[in-house]
Amino acid sequence: MNMLDETLKSIRTPDSEAERAAARRLDSLTKPPGSLGYLENAVRRYAAIRGDAQARMGRGALAVFVADHGIADEGVSAFPQSVTVEMLRNIAAGGAAISVLARRFGYQLRVIDAGVRTDTSGSPLDPVIYRRVASGTANFARGPAMTPEQARRSLEVGIETARDLAAAGATLIGIGEMGIANSTSAAAILSAVTSIAPAELAGRGTGLDDAGVRHKIAVIERALELHRPSLSTPESILAAVGGFEIGAMAGVCLAGAALRVPVVVDGFIATASAAIAERIRPGLFEYLFFSHRSAEGGHALALQKLGVRPMLDLDLRLGEGTGAALAMNVLESALELFHSMATFGSAGVSGKVR
Amino acid sequence: MNMLDETLKSIRTPDSEAERAAARRLDSLTKPPGSLGYLENAVRRYAAIRGDAQARMGRGALAVFVADHGIADEGVSAFPQSVTVEMLRNIAAGGAAISVLARRFGYQLRVIDAGVRTDTSGSPLDPVIYRRVASGTANFARGPAMTPEQARRSLEVGIETARDLAAAGATLIGIGEMGIANSTSAAAILSAVTSIAPAELAGRGTGLDDAGVRHKIAVIERALELHRPSLSTPESILAAVGGFEIGAMAGVCLAGAALRVPVVVDGFIATASAAIAERIRPGLFEYLFFSHRSAEGGHALALQKLGVRPMLDLDLRLGEGTGAALAMNVLESALELFHSMATFGSAGVSGKVR
Repeated sequence: MNMLDETLKSIRTPDSEAERAAARRLDSLTKPPGSLGYLENAVRRYAAIRGDAQARMGRGALAVFVADHGIADEGVSAFPQSVTVEMLRNIAAGGAAISVLARRFGYQLRVIDAGVRTDTSGSPLDPVIYRRVASGTANFARGPAMTPEQARRSLEVGIETARDLAAAGATLIGIGEMGIANSTSAAAILSAVTSIAPAELAGRGTGLDDAGVRHKIAVIERALELHRPSLSTPESILAAVGGFEIGAMAGVCLAGAALRVPVVVDGFIATASAAIAERIRPGLFEYLFFSHRSAEGGHALALQKLGVRPMLDLDLRLGEGTGAALAMNVLESALELFHSMATFGSAGVSGKVR
Repeated sequence: MNMLDETLKSIRTPDSEAERAAARRLDSLTKPPGSLGYLENAVRRYAAIRGDAQARMGRGALAVFVADHGIADEGVSAFPQSVTVEMLRNIAAGGAAISVLARRFGYQLRVIDAGVRTDTSGSPLDPVIYRRVASGTANFARGPAMTPEQARRSLEVGIETARDLAAAGATLIGIGEMGIANSTSAAAILSAVTSIAPAELAGRGTGLDDAGVRHKIAVIERALELHRPSLSTPESILAAVGGFEIGAMAGVCLAGAALRVPVVVDGFIATASAAIAERIRPGLFEYLFFSHRSAEGGHALALQKLGVRPMLDLDLRLGEGTGAALAMNVLESALELFHSMATFGSAGVSGKVR
């Protein structure tokens, strides 16, 4: 059996008994019932996904996938394509935003080259893991971004990464990315999946001006027209207009569900991955946490259409998994409240009178 | 000069030069300009309030004020009044939600008895600070909650607390509270300050049912009618329908501005304090961070009317400063990004091309 089918076959339903047990404990803690709001919801879901009524915390991990996009040739990004490999170096060296947050929160930071144009594997960057599908995708304005085999391989890169991290003790995985022009790819995917028009989805990315955004929208519209016949399945959408890092993040979402490790989805690009994964395995959103409502393009609209509620709303649009890291930290705080607060009984606090 | 006037006199304008310098550094960091969204805004404001272009972090502190409310006699809370002192013990013993978050984040937790009905100062609870204005307010359904002298003293309790914390090295202070029936007091204050009707502000508090909320609204409406002639100044509003912990938190807001220590406002009750403080010193919101949009009653509406944006939106309605603690942790993460990220120059990352 291939890796994807194996993953899909091993996804079991969330553990409703663990969820109920966690809910009972939440109601015994010294606070008005339900008063921790979304944090209580998050603890219950964590327990259900983990299949662990005690909702124990292991280690948090961040999987950041880096890859290049042929669509950058169409001039859809404010920054040059060379920034992808430059930021791969910067993340590895510890200077990027996600490097700082991973250190601060004590999360394992796994950086994966999933297909950067410049191949650095000859003198490998420590601690980058090389799982290169190819040296960047093809320009999807002219043809498919990748072959069906490459699309499948990108999903496997994510599955392998999730398995590695779970084996090393991760009980929560955040996904993030870096790849110049990947907001163009993500907008095309989200448009294909949700039927929201490109004009409502495409944003400024790293900082396009109005004319740049108009051009980006036109590029996406033409590309979706070109590929329309082959947008029938999630894997064909990924192959037509996707990216290696986007496929890999979708793979993490699927493997996380199979491994009972909740996955925390970053912003606009990672949401495109989650949408692909949910199309591959309907119901998958039950296993995911959406970290934040990004300021990028139509992210808020896409989340609404997908029917999911993000944890944070801080106008972030940086990517790299920064929103995921911040949300994981909030989720861990919720778990600590769950573990460490006194109960009405133990603290001698009176209950409700009316 | 009295303590309040002294405080008001020493408030200087935020340091716009420090703010501009912080903004320049933010734009030099390896990320698309502005892509950290609200976090960049928070760093700039922190620098301006502190008067420190380097936006250095000292220690975070939480000031949690506990007091009782005579209005509890009207049956406006789902929990008995004894819970106030029981929770004072629980916070002191480390079992409350705020105790857990303070430990997790390494914040100094200062718990102040500002007027709990049961006086425990005879065998003092460690580490509670006793600054008792009285053994609970009077029932404001029948007369003023406090005398003008008590209202003034409650503000001073907050000013003294902020001074203590700043002297001990706090560069960020979160405010929170505990006091059975204080959401009734806060709704009355917010109605008096914003002109929003009590029916739109009053919520379930610790867990009232629909009939309980209707009763609470009627109590507030009648009380505001009773006190209407004396609701002309913020201090008279505080005296008429306020609480000692609410006055104390307003005092922290004012003293924080004077001491150049940003204050992070918790939820519904703390917002009532901030609103009183802003009425005492118009423009004070420049020195505050609003931590979260609470699920309690009309908090969202009140924040909108006051023209402030909260950092988080997690449906919390617990109080104690829990939302403030979570937001302080996000703010500290923003400061760490500001301090520790590489610059375009140092990391050799290319700049914009279009």
